[in-house]
Amino acid sequence: MSVVFSADLEDKNQEIGEIFTPRFDLCGLMTSVVTDACSGDLLMLAYMNAESIRLTLETGIAYFWSRSRKSLWKKGETSGNVFYIEEILIDCDQDALWLKVHVSGKKVACHTGARSCFYRRMTMDNDVIILK
Amino acid sequence: MSVVFSADLEDKNQEIGEIFTPRFDLCGLMTSVVTDACSGDLLMLAYMNAESIRLTLETGIAYFWSRSRKSLWKKGETSGNVFYIEEILIDCDQDALWLKVHVSGKKVACHTGARSCFYRRMTMDNDVIILK
Repeated sequence: MSVVFSADLEDKNQEIGEIFTPRFDLCGLMTSVVTDACSGDLLMLAYMNAESIRLTLETGIAYFWSRSRKSLWKKGETSGNVFYIEEILIDCDQDALWLKVHVSGKKVACHTGARSCFYRRMTMDNDVIILK
Repeated sequence: MSVVFSADLEDKNQEIGEIFTPRFDLCGLMTSVVTDACSGDLLMLAYMNAESIRLTLETGIAYFWSRSRKSLWKKGETSGNVFYIEEILIDCDQDALWLKVHVSGKKVACHTGARSCFYRRMTMDNDVIILK
């Protein structure tokens, strides 16, 4: 007979259960991976607190927590590039979210004007890491 | 004439430059988003320190930093599900990475045995968040 510790049981419930038992970090945030629902491309990483998760699920529009401004952030409120939610998935240990979205407006996710925040490739050149 | 502050210049160089100037968090880590190079599916989030980034670029195999074990972690070392790197991209402010990988072995990324850590959908049911 195998002994199951309560911590293991808790982990198991978190992994297979239908109950939302989020593991926020010490700042009350969870990392959110945002991909384009059509192309599948990774658009950006952002952070959500309990309020932004609830607002996002209720409205179908992505809300985040801005760590720099320390405030709730409706993505696209000023730029017009709103993220409309296609689907939200949560990971095994409930500390990360995957948002599949449709971007409105100019379909730009990054503040630099790029469609995605990930626009540079990393390579090694003579032991030096180069971005291109 | 617009005034450009040094902090702005620093940000700009970080955003457009070819020099790797990583913004690690207080633990010396960077979030890494891992997707399947073929399907585009999000497989997992993991964390990399300077050493694991360098090892990954040098070997073409994904190394992470295990926050729970507090040690370098060659993904798949025990499970056989090694991540072979197709491409690594970095985001605008150099605090996140996107690893496109080919998974070997049973092609399983998650410790639960699922192909991806993101296997549950979040929905609202009478104001309650449900995972299915």
